[in-house]
Amino acid sequence: MKEFLNLVPQDDALKILLSELDSSPVAEVISTKLAFGRITANPILAPHPLPEFRRSTVDGYAVRAIDTYGAGESLPAYLNDIGEVHMGKSTDLVLAPTECALIHTGGMLPKGADAVVMVENTQSSKSGEIEILRAVAVGENLINIGEDVKPGEVVIPSGRRIRAAEIGGMMALGFTEVAVTQKPRVGILSSGDEVIPPENQPLPGQVRDINSYTLAAVVEQIGGEAVHYGILPDKYATVLDTAKRAHSECDVVVITAGSSVSVRDLTATVIDELGQPGVLVHGVNIRPGKPTILGVCDGKPVIGLPGNPVSALVNVEMFVSPVVRKLLGEKSDQPKPTVYAKLLVNLASESGRVEWVPVQIFSSEDGWEADPVFGKSNLIFTLARADGLVRINPDATGLSAGEIVEVVLF
Amino acid sequence: MKEFLNLVPQDDALKILLSELDSSPVAEVISTKLAFGRITANPILAPHPLPEFRRSTVDGYAVRAIDTYGAGESLPAYLNDIGEVHMGKSTDLVLAPTECALIHTGGMLPKGADAVVMVENTQSSKSGEIEILRAVAVGENLINIGEDVKPGEVVIPSGRRIRAAEIGGMMALGFTEVAVTQKPRVGILSSGDEVIPPENQPLPGQVRDINSYTLAAVVEQIGGEAVHYGILPDKYATVLDTAKRAHSECDVVVITAGSSVSVRDLTATVIDELGQPGVLVHGVNIRPGKPTILGVCDGKPVIGLPGNPVSALVNVEMFVSPVVRKLLGEKSDQPKPTVYAKLLVNLASESGRVEWVPVQIFSSEDGWEADPVFGKSNLIFTLARADGLVRINPDATGLSAGEIVEVVLF
Repeated sequence: MKEFLNLVPQDDALKILLSELDSSPVAEVISTKLAFGRITANPILAPHPLPEFRRSTVDGYAVRAIDTYGAGESLPAYLNDIGEVHMGKSTDLVLAPTECALIHTGGMLPKGADAVVMVENTQSSKSGEIEILRAVAVGENLINIGEDVKPGEVVIPSGRRIRAAEIGGMMALGFTEVAVTQKPRVGILSSGDEVIPPENQPLPGQVRDINSYTLAAVVEQIGGEAVHYGILPDKYATVLDTAKRAHSECDVVVITAGSSVSVRDLTATVIDELGQPGVLVHGVNIRPGKPTILGVCDGKPVIGLPGNPVSALVNVEMFVSPVVRKLLGEKSDQPKPTVYAKLLVNLASESGRVEWVPVQIFSSEDGWEADPVFGKSNLIFTLARADGLVRINPDATGLSAGEIVEVVLF
Repeated sequence: MKEFLNLVPQDDALKILLSELDSSPVAEVISTKLAFGRITANPILAPHPLPEFRRSTVDGYAVRAIDTYGAGESLPAYLNDIGEVHMGKSTDLVLAPTECALIHTGGMLPKGADAVVMVENTQSSKSGEIEILRAVAVGENLINIGEDVKPGEVVIPSGRRIRAAEIGGMMALGFTEVAVTQKPRVGILSSGDEVIPPENQPLPGQVRDINSYTLAAVVEQIGGEAVHYGILPDKYATVLDTAKRAHSECDVVVITAGSSVSVRDLTATVIDELGQPGVLVHGVNIRPGKPTILGVCDGKPVIGLPGNPVSALVNVEMFVSPVVRKLLGEKSDQPKPTVYAKLLVNLASESGRVEWVPVQIFSSEDGWEADPVFGKSNLIFTLARADGLVRINPDATGLSAGEIVEVVLF
């Protein structure tokens, strides 16, 4: 049990791990269309202003604002209609005093115009003449050159996860390709004499591999590339050989192993063999996930996760996801998606450690309600039934029914 | 302006649209490994119990609980050690009274055993004899057959979006393939005489296409397949022809068009031409997005979105995403990911309509803070700078600085 003498608090454990990692992601250029969810490798600067010309934001008449001052329903301003601005074209029209021109939403303002009167505030009783029924100020109902973006402005910082809006912004500026960071390769090893591939029929005493697939799903969702190294027997030489290969071929290595003490010791010994400094944290003060091992070997993170599928899945979120984000170069102050819900029952907890309790969420008239999914942490369907996790802090001895709790969604 | 005489409230508009749609998704069988984010087409039933054998949850000794009753540090129970249960194998060991067997976490309990004593609560002073220092109850430190899942139980309902935990659950039961619903094909048309492809250099009066790409990104993220029909001039015959082709080839058609009245009328006329009943909602009481048009044509949803990129992106979330979810057969009570944040400034709103205000989120010592990104709704970088949207309800005239608001994350 020696390894559990020094359980490290969850938040400290992550800090220790991340502080040992350099993030110097390599960039690759891809089509902007395919960049959703990727991380920008460089800041993106606007090569030109947006918009590039003064655009009307309404249907109406381009005017010189001064010509409309004092105009109202009872005393219209009368302006000469000199023509129409066609969409998508530069216009040759130039407004002289007391002139106006028909313009559509998104149309380019003619020279001389400095405002637009909405069509609702105009009427035409005589050919070639428009009555203006409401005064407008300079700049009203138009967007100026550079009002969205100025040339040279950083429009998207580096380290930003690309969403639909970023794709749109890049397209607006003509960037049909973008430099993003390469996906970190995460090697996944599953060790256990009792573990068999899911397509096989288990004999008594055997269980199917779950962790390789749940971990790969989380890794790929966060933006990494999962590389499978298969199921290994709990033999030191085999695990070490495969771990060395994964360590040389990948940017991160994750070993899920059985939960018995001897197997955990095997994982720790393997991590210490892979490079310096080796194991940094052996045992985390978290439930589930106490046997988690965090190491860095010659600059690459190597993480040992408990074999039981619930612990593995919770801890891949807690430790592997932040590592992948850091290697991706993601710089983000974005919160984790959460909801607030009323806890339906009391939850006891052992003071001194972080506890993560799977909950189902239901909508009620008063908002969301959270109902814990009780079950031993070995039961994968405990998580399949849950919508998210409630955190019980180390300084709490539990949570009370009726309390509003924050649920971190999967 | 006739089309805006009857603005429909946002929630009603969505209900009207969804109530006209039948959801009868077609299933396809794919590899479970690749099923992340897809929707189950059928309920998944457990073909066998999980676990399939009684498993120890600790390292220790399998015992008959009755043999440990009364045991303590000062008065151990002495049991005969009859051997070790090896991992991944059926065991031939059978415990007779006063016998025990070494077992590891995840190991199969031998016949006769009904509990496990943790190794920490045992000691061995004489070969072949184990001292039990703590009594255990029947069932302690083990998982019974079927404790996770019983045979025939629905472990994953139909219409469920597959997460890592569902992938793990399916693998545990040997389902390496799964029937999921086919991705709805969403045809995207961008109309506008002023719109050019992003790779082109805009001439004065022209703007690059943004909406085709932002809408495609949202559609694909939610689980649909985006099909591009290109940029069309604002000509009735061209838009109608292309819309007809999209309508015949896709499950949903989305037309983003300029915001001038004549172009909106063109879109509405096209939708009415595509099939029955045609336009259902012409104008929604929402900002941004008032000119949104919702229709169903011969059973397929056809949606007209405002051409301005912020309106288009907000309204694809509000109307196209729910449509895609329904066509996917997703049945989910899952909340949208949100965070609660303190609003930093007052926000005024026009009572009577739903208003969505883009905000940036910052972490502070007191939690998250939300700072509105002000900007006209034509400015794409308004959204690229935002982390989410704050909803102002129709019955409110605004929100006050210091209020805690719910931010729907992008």
